[in-house]
Amino acid sequence: MNQKEALKTYKEFNEKIKAYILVLSTTDIDRLTVAPRKGSAYRNKMLSIIEGELYELQTDKKYVDAILYLSKLDLGETANRDIALAKKSLENILKFTKEETMEFSLAMMNSYEAWYDAKNKNDYRIFEPHLLKLIEMSKIRLQKRDPKMHPYDLALDDFEEGMNRKKYDRFFSLIKKELLPLIRKIDKKKDYIDDSFLYLYYPAEKQAIFMKDIMKYIGFSSDWGYMATTEHPFTDSLSRNDVRVTTAYDEHNITSAIFSLIHECGHGFYDHQVDPKFDAYPYLHQMSSGMHESQSRFFENYLGRRKSFFKLLYPKLQKLFPENLGNVSLDDFIRAVNVSRCSLIRTDADELTYPIHILIRYELEREIFENKIDLGRLDQLWDERYEKYLGIKADKASEGILQDVHWSGASFGYFPTYALGSAIGAQIFHKMQEDLDIDGLLEKGKFSRITDYLKKNIQHYGALYTFNQILLKATGKEFDPQYYIDYLKNKYMDLYGIKK
Amino acid sequence: MNQKEALKTYKEFNEKIKAYILVLSTTDIDRLTVAPRKGSAYRNKMLSIIEGELYELQTDKKYVDAILYLSKLDLGETANRDIALAKKSLENILKFTKEETMEFSLAMMNSYEAWYDAKNKNDYRIFEPHLLKLIEMSKIRLQKRDPKMHPYDLALDDFEEGMNRKKYDRFFSLIKKELLPLIRKIDKKKDYIDDSFLYLYYPAEKQAIFMKDIMKYIGFSSDWGYMATTEHPFTDSLSRNDVRVTTAYDEHNITSAIFSLIHECGHGFYDHQVDPKFDAYPYLHQMSSGMHESQSRFFENYLGRRKSFFKLLYPKLQKLFPENLGNVSLDDFIRAVNVSRCSLIRTDADELTYPIHILIRYELEREIFENKIDLGRLDQLWDERYEKYLGIKADKASEGILQDVHWSGASFGYFPTYALGSAIGAQIFHKMQEDLDIDGLLEKGKFSRITDYLKKNIQHYGALYTFNQILLKATGKEFDPQYYIDYLKNKYMDLYGIKK
Repeated sequence: MNQKEALKTYKEFNEKIKAYILVLSTTDIDRLTVAPRKGSAYRNKMLSIIEGELYELQTDKKYVDAILYLSKLDLGETANRDIALAKKSLENILKFTKEETMEFSLAMMNSYEAWYDAKNKNDYRIFEPHLLKLIEMSKIRLQKRDPKMHPYDLALDDFEEGMNRKKYDRFFSLIKKELLPLIRKIDKKKDYIDDSFLYLYYPAEKQAIFMKDIMKYIGFSSDWGYMATTEHPFTDSLSRNDVRVTTAYDEHNITSAIFSLIHECGHGFYDHQVDPKFDAYPYLHQMSSGMHESQSRFFENYLGRRKSFFKLLYPKLQKLFPENLGNVSLDDFIRAVNVSRCSLIRTDADELTYPIHILIRYELEREIFENKIDLGRLDQLWDERYEKYLGIKADKASEGILQDVHWSGASFGYFPTYALGSAIGAQIFHKMQEDLDIDGLLEKGKFSRITDYLKKNIQHYGALYTFNQILLKATGKEFDPQYYIDYLKNKYMDLYGIKK
Repeated sequence: MNQKEALKTYKEFNEKIKAYILVLSTTDIDRLTVAPRKGSAYRNKMLSIIEGELYELQTDKKYVDAILYLSKLDLGETANRDIALAKKSLENILKFTKEETMEFSLAMMNSYEAWYDAKNKNDYRIFEPHLLKLIEMSKIRLQKRDPKMHPYDLALDDFEEGMNRKKYDRFFSLIKKELLPLIRKIDKKKDYIDDSFLYLYYPAEKQAIFMKDIMKYIGFSSDWGYMATTEHPFTDSLSRNDVRVTTAYDEHNITSAIFSLIHECGHGFYDHQVDPKFDAYPYLHQMSSGMHESQSRFFENYLGRRKSFFKLLYPKLQKLFPENLGNVSLDDFIRAVNVSRCSLIRTDADELTYPIHILIRYELEREIFENKIDLGRLDQLWDERYEKYLGIKADKASEGILQDVHWSGASFGYFPTYALGSAIGAQIFHKMQEDLDIDGLLEKGKFSRITDYLKKNIQHYGALYTFNQILLKATGKEFDPQYYIDYLKNKYMDLYGIKK
C-alpha cells in the first residue's frame, strides 16, 4: 500500500459509510419525531440490521489497514486530525463483534420506546429494566474498551475529549461553592418577580407560529434546515445543508418551546457553519458535545434571554397571545424569563440553577459507574438528590428520573457537557462583548453578524481542535470557569437586587 | 441445495433486503415531505449509494439461486405466489448492472428536484431535460427487459399485471363513447350548481385541524399511521403498522386536501389490512397499482363524496370556517363537491371528467413509447390534448404538464391505473351496496364496518391474486367496466337533472 492507494481506499469507504449514516440518521430522526409507535418493534429490528451492515463496512480490513497506514504519515494538520479521530473511532468499534454492536443498538432503540411509554404513563417501572440493562452493558463495554481507564472517565472523554472526573470534580466544586449560596438567597425571594403569566394556556398551534418568527429572526433557513416536534428536543444534521432541529410544546409554559428551539438552533448553526473544505474529512464534522452545548446554550441564554433579543420578537408574541401578554411589558417579560427558582425540570431551568441539575446527574452517574449506588433505588435517589440540593421533590417520575431521554440512549457522561458548555459559552460571550455591540445588533435584528462571528471564531473549525484549543484561538485564553461564575453572579444579583 | 436450505437463504436475504427498503423508504418519505432542498444533491448521491448496496444484496448469487431453486417447487399457493413475484422482480433487476441501477435511481431523484423547482417557478424548461432523459432511459430499459414485448405494454404490465395497450384501448374507447357526450351536455349547464364557496380563503392551519377529524372518522390511527404534507400527495408504508399518508393544502380550494387525504387513507388502509400471515412473504405486500387505486378512489369517491359520509363531519368543517360555510347546508355542500366541470388539475377533478384526464395521459404516454410524438413539444401537446377533450387550456405549465409528479419518477404506465382503479372500485361498490347499508353505516360513523368489509373481501389478500381474481372472489364476476359507466351516468344525470 502506498499513500495514494490508502487515501483512495479511505475516501471510497467513507463515501459508503456516510451514505449508511445518512439513511440511519434520517430513519432515526423519523423514529424520534413522527413514526407511529406500533411500527417500532419491526423498525428497530430493521435498523439494527443496517447497523450491522455499517459495522461490516467500518471494520472491513481494507478500511482498517488504510486508516492504520495513514495514521503513521504526516498529511498536514487537517488530514492528520481527521485520521486521528477516525483511528480513535475505529479502535472502539473493533472492540466489539457485529452481533454485540447490533444487540447494543437494538437495546437502545427498545429502551427509547420503553422510556417514551414510561414517561407518558408516569411509571418508572416500565423503563427500569431497560435502564438497568443499558447500565450493565455500558459498564462492560467501557471496561472492554480500555481496561486501564476508569469507565466513567472514559465515558466523560467520549463526550468531551480530555475531560475526566478529576476535572469535572474541580469544576462542580466551584459551582457548588460559588452558586449554591446565591441560589439559596434568591429562593427566599420567591415572589420578587411575577412570572405567572408565562404559565397560562398557550395552544401549541399558536406557539408553532412563533417558532417560525424565531427561526426567521435567527436566520435559520428552511433552505438548509427543518424543524420538527418530538418528545425530547434534539438536533441532528444529515449534512451541512440539511440540519434538523426539533422542539416540544408545553401548553402551560410558553418558555419551554421557545428556549428549547433557540437552543437547538445553536446546535444547528454549528453544524451548518463548519468549513465547507471539511466535507472531505468526515470526522471533522463530529464536534465534541461540550463545544456543541457551548453553542446551543450560547444561543439559548447568552443571547436568547436578553431584552435586545426580544425587542423585535416580543411584539409578535404579544400579538399571538394578547389575552395572556397584552398587558405585560417587554421588561416584565424579560425579567420573568430570567426568574431563578429551584425547579424540577432541567430543560426548563433558569441559568443559575441549571448547573445544579447537571451536578445531580453527574453525581449519580459517577456513583453508578463507581458501583457506589443501589441501582434498585435510582428513581428515589434522583428525588433525594433534588431535595438535597434544590429542596424540592418530584411528585411524578415524569418530572423526576424520567424527564430526560439521555439514559435511554446509554448517553452516560453526556450531561456534564451541558454545564461545561454553558461555562465555555460564558467565556466566548465575554470576548464577544469586547468585539461586538451585541445588544445593538440584536435590537436591529442583525443576527447574522453574530452568527458570522461565531462561524469565524468557533464554528468553522468543526472538530479540528479540542475545546481548549478553540477557546485559546477565540478568546486568547484556555478554559476558565470563572467567567461563568462571574456572569451568573452579576446577572442574578442585579436581577434580584442583591448587593455585591 | 435442498428446500430447507433454500428457504433459509431466501428468508435471511429477505430480512436484510427489507431492512434496506425500510431505511431507503424512510429517507424517501423524508425527502418528499420535509427535507431542505439545499441538502438534495448530497442526499440523493448518498441514497443512490445505498441503492447500489441493495442491488448487491438482491443480485447475490446465493439469493438468486435460492429463488430459482424454489420457483421450481410446489410450496403451496401462498409461497408459490411470493416466489413467483420474487422471481419476476429478480429477472428485471438482473437485466441491469449496479452502475446502471444507481444511475437511474439518481436520475429520478434529481429529476424530482427539477420538477419541484420547475413547478414552483412555473417553468417547464427546468424540468424538460430531466424528463427527456428519463423517457430515453426508460425506453432503453424496457426494451432491454423484454425485447419481444412492446415497451409500453411492459410498462403497463408493471403497474397492473395482465394489462396492456389492447385492453386499455378497449377500456378508454368505452369511456370516450359513453362519457364524453354526457360531459359535453353538463358543460353547457355550468351554473346549474353553485360551488363558489369552496374556493374562498381557507387557511392551511385550520384545514389541518379538519384533517384530524377526517382521520378520526375513518379510523386512521396515529398508533399505526402518520400524515405529513408534501408537494404531491402519496402514501408509503414502512410496514403494516407504519403507514405514511400525505396531503397538500390549497388555501383557495377546501376540497383539495380533504379528498386527497381521504384518497391516501384508502391506500393506507390497504397496506395496513394485509393478512398478518403474509409478513413472512415480502412480495405479497407489493400490491398492484390498479388494485391500490381501486381502494383509494373507493374511499375518495364512492364513500367520500356521499352525503352520509359528511353527516357527522360537515358540522365540524362549518365550525372551523363559519365565515365561508356557515350558511351552506350539507346538501348544498355535497352538490358542490360533486360538481362536474372541465378543469385542468387531475387530482382536483370530479369523478365524471376524471377518466378523461387519464385518457389524455394514456394517449400521450402511448405515443411517447410508440415514437409517434415530437418530444420537444410535449408541454404543448399536453395543452392541445386538454383542449381537444375538455375544451380548456392551461395558462401556466404548473397547471399543465408540470402538475403531476409521476413522470419525474419515470412512472410511465402508472396513470391508467387510476381510471382502472376507479372502474374496479365501482364494481366493488355495486357489490358492497348489496351486502351493507352503506349510508346507514356512514351516517352513524360506523366506518370500521366498511373497512372490515374491505379487509375481508379485498385487502387481506395483499398481492396473493391478480385484480381479476380478487374481483371474482369479492364480486362473483371478473372485471366489467360497465359498472363504472352506469354509476357515473346515473349519478351525474340525477345530479344535473338530465333525463335518462
